[in-house]
Amino acid sequence: MLLLEERINKDGIIGAGNVLKVDSFLNHQMDVSFLTKLAEEFYRLYKDCGVNKILTIEASGIGIACLTAQFFNVPMVFAKKSKSKNIAGDVYTSKVESFTHGTVHDIIVSKDFLKENDNVLIIDDFLAKGQALLGLTKLVKDAGANVVGCGIVIEKAFQDGGDLIRSQGIRVESLARIKSMSVEDGVEFC
Amino acid sequence: MLLLEERINKDGIIGAGNVLKVDSFLNHQMDVSFLTKLAEEFYRLYKDCGVNKILTIEASGIGIACLTAQFFNVPMVFAKKSKSKNIAGDVYTSKVESFTHGTVHDIIVSKDFLKENDNVLIIDDFLAKGQALLGLTKLVKDAGANVVGCGIVIEKAFQDGGDLIRSQGIRVESLARIKSMSVEDGVEFC
Repeated sequence: MLLLEERINKDGIIGAGNVLKVDSFLNHQMDVSFLTKLAEEFYRLYKDCGVNKILTIEASGIGIACLTAQFFNVPMVFAKKSKSKNIAGDVYTSKVESFTHGTVHDIIVSKDFLKENDNVLIIDDFLAKGQALLGLTKLVKDAGANVVGCGIVIEKAFQDGGDLIRSQGIRVESLARIKSMSVEDGVEFC
Repeated sequence: MLLLEERINKDGIIGAGNVLKVDSFLNHQMDVSFLTKLAEEFYRLYKDCGVNKILTIEASGIGIACLTAQFFNVPMVFAKKSKSKNIAGDVYTSKVESFTHGTVHDIIVSKDFLKENDNVLIIDDFLAKGQALLGLTKLVKDAGANVVGCGIVIEKAFQDGGDLIRSQGIRVESLARIKSMSVEDGVEFC
């Protein structure tokens, strides 16, 4: 998506360890009118797939997932990273390793909000090693529901997460796919 | 806001320890078309106040803040709960105690996204003891910016957070204010 690639080139900052900072518009400060255009693109890509639920993971996926749910006019559910007092009853759970934060945590979704007949579109801001997506697809499968596909804002295609998810037969649509990046040469898209 | 009170009566579940579960539409599963109406109400209340930025705190505030930012056509910034590798450089910080989760954590906002001339509307899903709001107002003040006010979805008016914030001269608009609640008698609104 050219609009997004231009924005990454303009406002993205490449830091040490292949961290791409896009926190001026995507995952700390959110340029909501811009993100609404990305959400509309997810709708264009998946509008004929019978999506009845959007699933994401806290925290930085929530904004774009919420905007995407507006276009589909369906509920959005976000998986939580730890069990809080506010979630009672049965939950689906899986483990996710975050390379960004250097942690492993459980993610959970209440069984009330994932059902056998759901057609779930998974939305997230980043796809790198694919651990979050794997965890989310496991939750959907545990519920006996169907993963329609994944909508990703930025995929680091030089890491193996995208291949990992696609090799399971899951459709992954990424609005920008980064082939390589470095402080010296900037970002090259696929 | 009658629409919200009716929804709380219909779908809210009161649990032990005065926990009000509204996770079927507000803070786990999000009924985005319903939340868009709440966001529009925040816009009606604050549209003449020169708001140029929406501030909230991860995770459950992000959705409603994002939808509110759409109406104002301004960026939304969410405070993060711990320092991750993706936030470099200087940050504003304050400590917040979460009674829901039984934790104390730092919340941070990059200095890039709160500026001296900002007119900030703070949005959150719940107001109980007011600790999150206090932390957020501190971040705004540390930046030399102005708190226009707070927009809260559900205020537990039987706890002291609302009084605490209002006593500082900060405008707080809560779309539903709960006077009392119990498993036996349900929810009574102010």
